[in-house]
Amino acid sequence: MILRIDKLAIDLPKPKNPSPNSAAAIQELLGGKYGEMSTLMNYTFQSFNFRGRDKLKPYYDLIANIAAEEYSHIELVSYAINLLLSGSTTRGTDPTATPLGSAVDARNSYHFIASGQTALPVDSMGNPWTGANVFSSGNLKLDLIHNFFLECGARANKIRAYEMVEGPTARTMVGYLLVRGGTHVVAYARAIEKLTGADLTKLFPIPDISNKKFPEARALEEQGLHQIQFIWSPEDFRSISEIWNGPHPEDGSELRVEEAIPAGFTPPNLPEEPQLTAPGVDPEFIREVARRISR
Amino acid sequence: MILRIDKLAIDLPKPKNPSPNSAAAIQELLGGKYGEMSTLMNYTFQSFNFRGRDKLKPYYDLIANIAAEEYSHIELVSYAINLLLSGSTTRGTDPTATPLGSAVDARNSYHFIASGQTALPVDSMGNPWTGANVFSSGNLKLDLIHNFFLECGARANKIRAYEMVEGPTARTMVGYLLVRGGTHVVAYARAIEKLTGADLTKLFPIPDISNKKFPEARALEEQGLHQIQFIWSPEDFRSISEIWNGPHPEDGSELRVEEAIPAGFTPPNLPEEPQLTAPGVDPEFIREVARRISR
Amino acid sequence: MILRIDKLAIDLPKPKNPSPNSAAAIQELLGGKYGEMSTLMNYTFQSFNFRGRDKLKPYYDLIANIAAEEYSHIELVSYAINLLLSGSTTRGTDPTATPLGSAVDARNSYHFIASGQTALPVDSMGNPWTGANVFSSGNLKLDLIHNFFLECGARANKIRAYEMVEGPTARTMVGYLLVRGGTHVVAYARAIEKLTGADLTKLFPIPDISNKKFPEARALEEQGLHQIQFIWSPEDFRSISEIWNGPHPEDGSELRVEEAIPAGFTPPNLPEEPQLTAPGVDPEFIREVARRISR
Amino acid sequence: MILRIDKLAIDLPKPKNPSPNSAAAIQELLGGKYGEMSTLMNYTFQSFNFRGRDKLKPYYDLIANIAAEEYSHIELVSYAINLLLSGSTTRGTDPTATPLGSAVDARNSYHFIASGQTALPVDSMGNPWTGANVFSSGNLKLDLIHNFFLECGARANKIRAYEMVEGPTARTMVGYLLVRGGTHVVAYARAIEKLTGADLTKLFPIPDISNKKFPEARALEEQGLHQIQFIWSPEDFRSISEIWNGPHPEDGSELRVEEAIPAGFTPPNLPEEPQLTAPGVDPEFIREVARRISR
Amino acid sequence: MILRIDKLAIDLPKPKNPSPNSAAAIQELLGGKYGEMSTLMNYTFQSFNFRGRDKLKPYYDLIANIAAEEYSHIELVSYAINLLLSGSTTRGTDPTATPLGSAVDARNSYHFIASGQTALPVDSMGNPWTGANVFSSGNLKLDLIHNFFLECGARANKIRAYEMVEGPTARTMVGYLLVRGGTHVVAYARAIEKLTGADLTKLFPIPDISNKKFPEARALEEQGLHQIQFIWSPEDFRSISEIWNGPHPEDGSELRVEEAIPAGFTPPNLPEEPQLTAPGVDPEFIREVARRISR
Amino acid sequence: MILRIDKLAIDLPKPKNPSPNSAAAIQELLGGKYGEMSTLMNYTFQSFNFRGRDKLKPYYDLIANIAAEEYSHIELVSYAINLLLSGSTTRGTDPTATPLGSAVDARNSYHFIASGQTALPVDSMGNPWTGANVFSSGNLKLDLIHNFFLECGARANKIRAYEMVEGPTARTMVGYLLVRGGTHVVAYARAIEKLTGADLTKLFPIPDISNKKFPEARALEEQGLHQIQFIWSPEDFRSISEIWNGPHPEDGSELRVEEAIPAGFTPPNLPEEPQLTAPGVDPEFIREVARRISR
Repeated sequence: MILRIDKLAIDLPKPKNPSPNSAAAIQELLGGKYGEMSTLMNYTFQSFNFRGRDKLKPYYDLIANIAAEEYSHIELVSYAINLLLSGSTTRGTDPTATPLGSAVDARNSYHFIASGQTALPVDSMGNPWTGANVFSSGNLKLDLIHNFFLECGARANKIRAYEMVEGPTARTMVGYLLVRGGTHVVAYARAIEKLTGADLTKLFPIPDISNKKFPEARALEEQGLHQIQFIWSPEDFRSISEIWNGPHPEDGSELRVEEAIPAGFTPPNLPEEPQLTAPGVDPEFIREVARRISR
Repeated sequence: MILRIDKLAIDLPKPKNPSPNSAAAIQELLGGKYGEMSTLMNYTFQSFNFRGRDKLKPYYDLIANIAAEEYSHIELVSYAINLLLSGSTTRGTDPTATPLGSAVDARNSYHFIASGQTALPVDSMGNPWTGANVFSSGNLKLDLIHNFFLECGARANKIRAYEMVEGPTARTMVGYLLVRGGTHVVAYARAIEKLTGADLTKLFPIPDISNKKFPEARALEEQGLHQIQFIWSPEDFRSISEIWNGPHPEDGSELRVEEAIPAGFTPPNLPEEPQLTAPGVDPEFIREVARRISR
Repeated sequence: MILRIDKLAIDLPKPKNPSPNSAAAIQELLGGKYGEMSTLMNYTFQSFNFRGRDKLKPYYDLIANIAAEEYSHIELVSYAINLLLSGSTTRGTDPTATPLGSAVDARNSYHFIASGQTALPVDSMGNPWTGANVFSSGNLKLDLIHNFFLECGARANKIRAYEMVEGPTARTMVGYLLVRGGTHVVAYARAIEKLTGADLTKLFPIPDISNKKFPEARALEEQGLHQIQFIWSPEDFRSISEIWNGPHPEDGSELRVEEAIPAGFTPPNLPEEPQLTAPGVDPEFIREVARRISR
Repeated sequence: MILRIDKLAIDLPKPKNPSPNSAAAIQELLGGKYGEMSTLMNYTFQSFNFRGRDKLKPYYDLIANIAAEEYSHIELVSYAINLLLSGSTTRGTDPTATPLGSAVDARNSYHFIASGQTALPVDSMGNPWTGANVFSSGNLKLDLIHNFFLECGARANKIRAYEMVEGPTARTMVGYLLVRGGTHVVAYARAIEKLTGADLTKLFPIPDISNKKFPEARALEEQGLHQIQFIWSPEDFRSISEIWNGPHPEDGSELRVEEAIPAGFTPPNLPEEPQLTAPGVDPEFIREVARRISR
Repeated sequence: MILRIDKLAIDLPKPKNPSPNSAAAIQELLGGKYGEMSTLMNYTFQSFNFRGRDKLKPYYDLIANIAAEEYSHIELVSYAINLLLSGSTTRGTDPTATPLGSAVDARNSYHFIASGQTALPVDSMGNPWTGANVFSSGNLKLDLIHNFFLECGARANKIRAYEMVEGPTARTMVGYLLVRGGTHVVAYARAIEKLTGADLTKLFPIPDISNKKFPEARALEEQGLHQIQFIWSPEDFRSISEIWNGPHPEDGSELRVEEAIPAGFTPPNLPEEPQLTAPGVDPEFIREVARRISR
Repeated sequence: MILRIDKLAIDLPKPKNPSPNSAAAIQELLGGKYGEMSTLMNYTFQSFNFRGRDKLKPYYDLIANIAAEEYSHIELVSYAINLLLSGSTTRGTDPTATPLGSAVDARNSYHFIASGQTALPVDSMGNPWTGANVFSSGNLKLDLIHNFFLECGARANKIRAYEMVEGPTARTMVGYLLVRGGTHVVAYARAIEKLTGADLTKLFPIPDISNKKFPEARALEEQGLHQIQFIWSPEDFRSISEIWNGPHPEDGSELRVEEAIPAGFTPPNLPEEPQLTAPGVDPEFIREVARRISR
């Protein structure tokens, strides 16, 4: 079971200009094979499916707890996409004015036909996320190696998305994900080390470019955000501290568990787009509905 | 963001006998077009994508809150599948004994090759869940009608799954989902009524067979579980009470909001399946790992 | 069985200029999840699969009859796409002149590689239509609710396509489909009302923008086209009049059955595109073939 | 545009016993890559997309006319599947009796979960038909060669389906399709000959087993059914006689055009399956609906 | 088993300018339904699956030998794509400079996110190649007709790709493939003739435009390259000469077998793209790795 | 370019009894996500796409050389499937005898409808292999980690396939693949170590069960087959010895390069299946064809 908290992990700046093609590219971080839907669902199913958890509880706790954090990542990427799309066509209520004219040349037409200029669980080519992306073999060592690889693949995609898209909305989001995803790479490396004794330290970073090269990530790492695993549960998952400890493989700082989650920020109120009938066309109708419900 | 609570919504009985083909059928309720992955992801994305939520907050809260409950449903279906699969092949560590011999005739070979006799985000034919199942048009009226239809389709599948699979594991789970899913059908009907004035009461039940015909569901409805929307958040989503009120369309009992979630039950510890190397082959190795980590 | 009549339901104007990206967008109305392939195939299969039709004949007739009309809609959308694509590359027989050079930047490359600048059963992102779009549960109430929702989703897509694409070819076609699809929304609403007693009138229009806001649709509604169900069969399906009657939910005008189909118009003769070898390269060869066959 | 005639091309016998796995196999002839959905949609789109039809009318007419016949084939295969599935689970209204218990082991679970024991546009493994199966290059010669190959592939599948499934329902249907599909193989061979002069006679039959080896097909060929192209239009497509003429490549009998379609037979009334809520659960409710509508 | 020779069949010129959208279009020839992955895999599987090869060895040899040549074709198309993509973004190691900025508008974002500006087994819309493209019925006549059609479809795509993309890289490659693929069309036509006696000569060329119209192909045909089947094996497949003989159907020149393969050319060394971390970011690191390994 | 050698790497024993469901399971090792099509195509594309190979030649050589070996693995798995399917239905030429009757209950109907009881590039559920399984990021470290993981995943699947299927055909094949695939796991681990200095020795074996537990694999390892990388090229790829050296991580024996490939065995002549028209129906026709061609 989950409790949902209506906050975003960070304060997402609004873009100066909407940019549908940037939004289309960022979709890879949401619905791509190495996007946040994949990390969320891989760890969620691995936690449901964990065999022998009585004996291996710290591993179960680690996977389940990271799964919970990934929810906040699909949320963040979705909101970044939504902000990049808001205002990207002509607001208004007259269909004959061709208000969606520019959408004909946009890279992801689903943003304008299937959704109301908002995120969908698809990748940068508009292909839907699929359950075939979930790996859950049941063999703990193999699942951990998978997860380590998955996080590295995800990191590579984040780096490339950063390099494709300018502006504070995307980059603040990607910078944060580089840091937090970075803690997941380290967490799975630590888990593999605890399980087998193999030391993966020399592999870092993968690909071979440090988070410090990304100003938005560097700023967060200077605050120590790369050293922390939050505990995303009021009472459970405490035993991750048996795995998440020791020095960070890149800068040697001490890994530590925080028995709380980030304070968070109120998600942006997405503006109405009447030309998309989202949430409706007629402002009077919406006012009327609002009135009616509060009676 | 979410907080995860390591509990199942109900106490799932263990099956007398494992049943791989029953597990394969139940997958439809997890990864099918009308399964719980679909309800979870539809409402989750609709909540991220909601435009004009400042004016229409009760609708936003309703969708976001139901999304949160759906997480507990993918969890329940997954555990039911896992219980039906545990022990379905011959436990042991000698591969030459053909311990997975029976799997050759099972309907879902992924349960034995891709997973360790556990759930996957696929449907009853093994086809993966896809993001194409998410509808998020941005038009509130249309999204609500979609959700109403989706819940009715999901209900039809639950009824058929119940009729396919005997035994307490599946039926306890399906009985619970019939009741809780039933509250979602009513919730979307109420939301449509509040938004437009149209009264959908006479449509119930869809399909035309009452939950009362399913003993496990009837027992729960006698306790009033069909009258309640839980609030799946420590502080948010309270305004659903502006929509979730009035008489239940089937039995006229009073709909009410409960500012809490179910107490829940500790999920079953899934037994080891060494022939699947899940979580590993050698019990000594697992003991050793357990020892090592607790140092 | 069907009889095919080599006519289009309306007289499609030729575009002033070809527009490949407009054609790519319009594909959503053909091969998209809510496109005409979906309405055609949903109702066609539901009619084949109808159980108990002896007792519920008007419902069977309604679904079967609307299915037949949908054929004329896939035809219309296909021809609109074909007209938008004709002439969009450089006509000629010399491949070294890079006659398809502009296609490299077009949104749907299949139009130039797989087809000869003509329609394909794919959506606006080039993803193929799939049989997974067909819903046929066998439960009449549920199938009707599905169909009602499907038509509303289709209407939303038509509205957005209209807003994306200027010019008389697309808009004449979309205007007509808004009116005719509108009669299908009403028909399924009426069928639900007849079946259950629930009155869906207050839901209209979905999304909340009237057909009257679209000049091409308004002109047709002023002629009463939104009040009519044609009968797409020489002898069958007459009992739809038991469902299709009463006032139109939006303007109160009287619904009526017409025991005929539209007169129709000769489809445009699509010009040759020799650079695509469509239908061939050499005009002399084509003349020769024409001569030979008429011997 | 089409007119639909509520008749089946042949009189389909009811099976002695239902057979879900036979129905699952027969699905290949409906929704498989070489099934009737493919022939229907290939020729339909090729006819919409035909360039230069003023000069090449007999070819256009041939493709369009065969497309129209294919509709009667998807209808026939669907009804055969429906007959094989009817009665395959336990009729009744008590879900606790596990009326669908046997479906857990059936090869196509969609028949029991997604549909009401009826046909779906999927193949023998339950994979959906896809628009990617449509070939429409615009080059007449290439499209004809494709169609010739497609019909040969379809013939191979029919032969194998015949060999897999006993009983009069499937075999009457397949026997008819072997004969009628056989006329399409010949038609495309003739069209290629008329277009290019190449004589394909020696290729027949493909695969190398004659229709005469199939008693149900032989009986129909003895009546000359393999010599006829029907004209599936009240007024159009007459020029096919410029292609469809000369001797049959297998038995030398004279090919001839019939300006009519088969008389046809009333489709079977599919029995109610209350355990699938198809069309509903309660017979009283259905009676009541029937009464209400006739008011 | 295979032996791999690290050479390309031809000397691929480098493009004057990179062109991502041209590369995207050329992908159709690699991963499209009628691309080289399809020809490679169709013939490879048909050769593994060939029944009765003791009696029909020349047919087996022909299919197996052509399969081997197709490997050199996926190689060539891949390198052409790689050359068109190299240098298409800004080389450098500073991610904040938005080095991949232009990729946001490119037609195939996978080239920049999933690969390092290199080829992938996808088509011109980015959809992955699928095993569903493999036809292997086991009936020799039908498989040969399929292969003949497949090669014709592939030829049509090559012609269109040529017409879409200017510049020597693509056109040298396509010109070569037109000639070599042309020998495969003839080979399957000859095999059909040998098997059945049917003469397909009059069908050529398909589509109806000669290779001679493509300067790069014409130059190679003037050297006789269209008359040759190479033998892609040190010792096997010699019996193809029983099929590959007689006059070429287009120009009457004599078909002949060459018991060798082309000499080939060293494949281009693809330049580093540090902004894609391909093969790494830091040139010093790469030098260091190179040093370390040679110790 | 490749040279194909018409030999199988090992001598595959024929099964005592055909077993279609075993064949269906073994398909996972061919067309599954972790099957041999995936290893073949991943390394093949990574070799085409390798950037900076002048500086990193041993890595390029290693990937390219392993790619070449994988071809012999798709061949072996395909032949194992073919042997398991041969004779699994009733041989004969009379279709009315329902010779394929048993296929109706088989798990993979494509084996009987699409192929002639032979292998297809699909997985154990009949889903086709897809190009989406290819990972080729261009970052050498990441690609190597991917390959290491892929081989571990492939090993897990081989173990499970071994445990599912009895009999010498499957087990001889899987035993060989366990050993040869094992050398690929070690090779990628060595490459990672050479590149980064990280020692992965303690991870072995993954999953945690030694090849020595599988008699067919143990026998081959006793001959030292796990210590060898063959060179699959007459002249290229020699520099792999700079990576493939040192002690084997599991038994400490010395890794060594062999500049040759296995001698190989003539592939089995697959028997005719006339009921599948494979390669044809009539033995006289086949004899006649054989005669004709040798003229």
